[in-house]
Amino acid sequence: MQFTSERRLDGAVREREFALGEIPGILWTPGSVSAPAPLILLGPPPLGLRKTYPRLVARARHSAAAGFATATIELPGRGDRPRWPAAEQALAELRRAMEAGEPVSDEIVDALILPLVDRAVPEWQAALDALLSLREIGGPVGYSGGVISIGTRLAVVEPRISAAVLFAGSFVPRAMFQEARQVTIPLHVLLQWDDEGNDRQAALDLFDAFGSKEKTLHANMGGHTGVPQFAGDAAAQFFTRHLK
Amino acid sequence: MQFTSERRLDGAVREREFALGEIPGILWTPGSVSAPAPLILLGPPPLGLRKTYPRLVARARHSAAAGFATATIELPGRGDRPRWPAAEQALAELRRAMEAGEPVSDEIVDALILPLVDRAVPEWQAALDALLSLREIGGPVGYSGGVISIGTRLAVVEPRISAAVLFAGSFVPRAMFQEARQVTIPLHVLLQWDDEGNDRQAALDLFDAFGSKEKTLHANMGGHTGVPQFAGDAAAQFFTRHLK
Repeated sequence: MQFTSERRLDGAVREREFALGEIPGILWTPGSVSAPAPLILLGPPPLGLRKTYPRLVARARHSAAAGFATATIELPGRGDRPRWPAAEQALAELRRAMEAGEPVSDEIVDALILPLVDRAVPEWQAALDALLSLREIGGPVGYSGGVISIGTRLAVVEPRISAAVLFAGSFVPRAMFQEARQVTIPLHVLLQWDDEGNDRQAALDLFDAFGSKEKTLHANMGGHTGVPQFAGDAAAQFFTRHLK
Repeated sequence: MQFTSERRLDGAVREREFALGEIPGILWTPGSVSAPAPLILLGPPPLGLRKTYPRLVARARHSAAAGFATATIELPGRGDRPRWPAAEQALAELRRAMEAGEPVSDEIVDALILPLVDRAVPEWQAALDALLSLREIGGPVGYSGGVISIGTRLAVVEPRISAAVLFAGSFVPRAMFQEARQVTIPLHVLLQWDDEGNDRQAALDLFDAFGSKEKTLHANMGGHTGVPQFAGDAAAQFFTRHLK
C-alpha cells in the first residue's frame, strides 16, 4: 500500500489517498488518537469513489468524531479502473430493462453482481491486510454500506469483520440468499421504503434469511439517497456498541 | 383526577397512583424538574396494569431519566375494571383459535379490538385533559406502545399527541388500515420479527399504510416480550428528537 496524498480536513480528520497495487483507495483517521482506532470499511456505492466522495467523506467525518478510522477502495470496473466487457453488457441490459419499465431478470442480476462480488471481496481482504498493518489502526473491524452482496460475502468469509451495517439498496442474486444464511455476525440493515431501484420484498426476504442472532432492520421513508440523518446516527451507535 | 397514593422510586422518580372517575392510573414524574415536563402516555399491554407493572415502571424510569413524565390508565375490561360479555366472548374465541392452531378470523379480531378502541380512546383523551392541567406537566405529548389500534386512533383524533412509538404486536382489524392512512404525526414502529402471536405481513402492511411522512420501522429478532435494550434506547431518542 502506497500513500499518494495527504491532507487534513478542518485541521482534524487525516485523509490519505493510497494505491493498493492498481486499486485506488482512501483512508481517514481521527485527528487525535492515543490508541489504535477501530476500523470501519466503507463499501463504496457502485457509482465509484469520485462521484460518491461527498457522501463518503461525510460518513468518514461522522465516524472519526466517534473515534473510528474509515477506509474504502474503488470497486473493480468503476472510477478509473479497467472495465470488462461482460460487466458493461450486464449494466447496459439493466438500464435498458429499467428504462423500459420491465422487470429485471435473474440473469441480468446474476451477470451484474456475481462477478463483481467474486472480484471485489479478495481485494477488500487484501486492503484489510494492509490497513491492519498500520500502527494507527487496530481492530475490531466493521463493514458499512455499499453493495449488499459484497457485504454479505465478506461477512461470511472474513473472520476479522465483527459487525456490519448493510444497505438494502441494490439487486441481490438468488444465490446470495444461501450465503446470507451463513452470516452470524451482528447486522444492522437499512432499507429505504420507497427506493425506486430496489425490490422491497426481496430486501425483506434477504433480511429474514440472514443467520445472525442479532439483526435489526431500520426502514425509513424516502428514496435511495434519502437516508435520514437520525438513521445514520443509529448506525453509528450500532458500531459503537459492537466495535468499542 | 384524584391521587390515591404517592411514593419515590430510588428517592428520585415520583410515582403517584390516581383514579380518573372509576379508571385507575399511574403518573411518574422526574425527581427534579424546573420547567413542566413533556409527557409520554404509556399505552398499557392488554394484560392489565398490575401484571405489566414491572415493564411499565422500567419504561417510566428510563423516560424520567431523559426528562419525561409518563402516565398510563387501565384499559376497559382489564385489571379490576368491569368485564363486558362481548369482549370476554371474543377473547375466549381468540384463545380457542390460537390453541387449535387455526387462523384468527377477521370477525374475532373485530369483536376483540374495535369495541376496545371505541371505549378506550375517549378515556385516554379525558386522562390527557386531567394530566395537562397539572402544573408539573407541559406539552408536547407522545404516545408509546400498548395496543397499536388504540395508538393509531389516538394519533388520528387527538391533536395534542405530537409523535408516537407503536408496537406492532397485536391483532389489527382491517378497518384500522383506513384510519392508519389518516395518521400524519412522526411514527416509530417496533416489530418483533419472530413474534409468535403477531402476523408479520399484516404488521408490514400496516406500517406501509400509515400516512406519516416521517415513519421508521425497527424490526428486531425475538418474540413478543424480547425487545432488546438498544431498541428501547432508540425509541427514547425518537421522543427526545420530537418532544424536546
